[in-house]
Amino acid sequence: MADYTFLTLIEVIGTIAFAISGIRLAAYRNFDWFGAYTVGLVTAIGGGTLRDILLDIPVFWMQTPLYLGVTGISLAVVILFRKMLVSNNRMLFIFDTLGLALFVVIGIQKTLAAGYPMWVAIVMGVITGSFGGVLRDILINEQPLFFRKDIYATACIGGGLVYWLAGLLGSGPIGCQLACAIVIIVLRMCALRWNWHLPVLSMAVTPDKK
Amino acid sequence: MADYTFLTLIEVIGTIAFAISGIRLAAYRNFDWFGAYTVGLVTAIGGGTLRDILLDIPVFWMQTPLYLGVTGISLAVVILFRKMLVSNNRMLFIFDTLGLALFVVIGIQKTLAAGYPMWVAIVMGVITGSFGGVLRDILINEQPLFFRKDIYATACIGGGLVYWLAGLLGSGPIGCQLACAIVIIVLRMCALRWNWHLPVLSMAVTPDKK
Amino acid sequence: MADYTFLTLIEVIGTIAFAISGIRLAAYRNFDWFGAYTVGLVTAIGGGTLRDILLDIPVFWMQTPLYLGVTGISLAVVILFRKMLVSNNRMLFIFDTLGLALFVVIGIQKTLAAGYPMWVAIVMGVITGSFGGVLRDILINEQPLFFRKDIYATACIGGGLVYWLAGLLGSGPIGCQLACAIVIIVLRMCALRWNWHLPVLSMAVTPDKK
Repeated sequence: MADYTFLTLIEVIGTIAFAISGIRLAAYRNFDWFGAYTVGLVTAIGGGTLRDILLDIPVFWMQTPLYLGVTGISLAVVILFRKMLVSNNRMLFIFDTLGLALFVVIGIQKTLAAGYPMWVAIVMGVITGSFGGVLRDILINEQPLFFRKDIYATACIGGGLVYWLAGLLGSGPIGCQLACAIVIIVLRMCALRWNWHLPVLSMAVTPDKK
Repeated sequence: MADYTFLTLIEVIGTIAFAISGIRLAAYRNFDWFGAYTVGLVTAIGGGTLRDILLDIPVFWMQTPLYLGVTGISLAVVILFRKMLVSNNRMLFIFDTLGLALFVVIGIQKTLAAGYPMWVAIVMGVITGSFGGVLRDILINEQPLFFRKDIYATACIGGGLVYWLAGLLGSGPIGCQLACAIVIIVLRMCALRWNWHLPVLSMAVTPDKK
Repeated sequence: MADYTFLTLIEVIGTIAFAISGIRLAAYRNFDWFGAYTVGLVTAIGGGTLRDILLDIPVFWMQTPLYLGVTGISLAVVILFRKMLVSNNRMLFIFDTLGLALFVVIGIQKTLAAGYPMWVAIVMGVITGSFGGVLRDILINEQPLFFRKDIYATACIGGGLVYWLAGLLGSGPIGCQLACAIVIIVLRMCALRWNWHLPVLSMAVTPDKK
């Protein structure tokens, strides 16, 4: 029960972080309030929704109006503080990274609780953390950042593997969750700091000399 | 039973309206017949499909070939009467609005029947009414109209709230459904007539004076 | 049991064919390795995933790590042999057609096994065969080829009808499956050879003479 409350708390924080990121992008496109709310909501709950559908468990945001309400608050925050949010990319990066780490942990936790093996849990962690952003990019008709941007999904996988290793080494769930979240946050910060990225898969044929 | 038949009837009318709207847009893009059929079908059944998956109830169009057949008839109508349909935006607006109102009513009805609270039913009403159109816009690779166009989704929410209020005031299901549908149709017509829209969420920073 | 093994085998071959087709397209867009892997995976398992969600049966790729592994091998193949793959459109067409035929057969088979009637099975065959490619095109932000390209989906429907007819004529499952796959392959090859396509649905109004 205490564990459940804790998971809900970090899910709410992650929801706010992701909703703000979605609403902000919608604002750049001059969406109306409802459109911006929808993009924020989809960004925040899209990953968890796909996870719950794939696991065939009740969809989390349909059990309590909490997540719809939290997204509404996020919209109000963006409307009130838009000037501050425009100029502060660093703060948004922190929010987004925190949301990512928390969502991956929750995705793994729920999948294991549903009785699936660890490799499915890692996949669901990645989906929970990143599918909302992919949906957001599809809705605003942009090529999903996911496929080119730094090591977003790779960080999720790294965190998932650490969760698994920590469990093998005898850690309890809280320890696994903490280790997973920390690794994701550190990986993304390092990637930003030193400009890490995966190799690009290029089909470019060497042009024949003229 | 009578109620069920009535719901099926309005679902069929809504299906035709939405299928024609999808097929017409596909035709502007020179899709082939099958592509146009698919876009029409997705527009018509997309919202209800997502609703049924989220509610974890059997997907409605897999229970009877009715909806696939009705979409086929819609395609034939567009092929035969394309000239008339090109020049008649007003008639399509009426069809689309009617379809929207009917689909929202059905979404609310089915969600309440599945035992969910009213706020979930309103969300499902909005999804049933508008998700098909969002899918259509994604398939033809346009930015979804949903996020900018008049008060489409807002009208759905308005209708949903009226459904809820009518129930609180002691109305039976038929009364609630009628009130909901009428409010949606009136709201959309007023929005068209007086150019109502929601405030746009703009991030534009006041440009510094040069 | 033997039948089950056989179905798994053709599902794996289809997965490789579709994964390579997705990864190759991602490579043209300079996706990083993980992005390319994801596009390949979505192309390969997208159709079957939607089918399993609609049928409300366990999602196939969550039951065994086979499909994720096979997609990884496909990525390695593309990385190692990219030069060969660039210049060989014919081989990819064959792979893609084979994958299509196998996936349609599997979609029909699983839907019938879940107790649905033949018309639902044909729809699921089309979805299994073509939805992955639609998702792929959405992810790389292209207008889905599906809606314009030769007789892709039409070939699936043709195969499905032949499956049904073969059953009516007394053939066992293996016979139906073979007939279905052969018809799809032959239809696509004929379409390529003689440039068959469905009529385009055009809304173009005859321009008034100036």
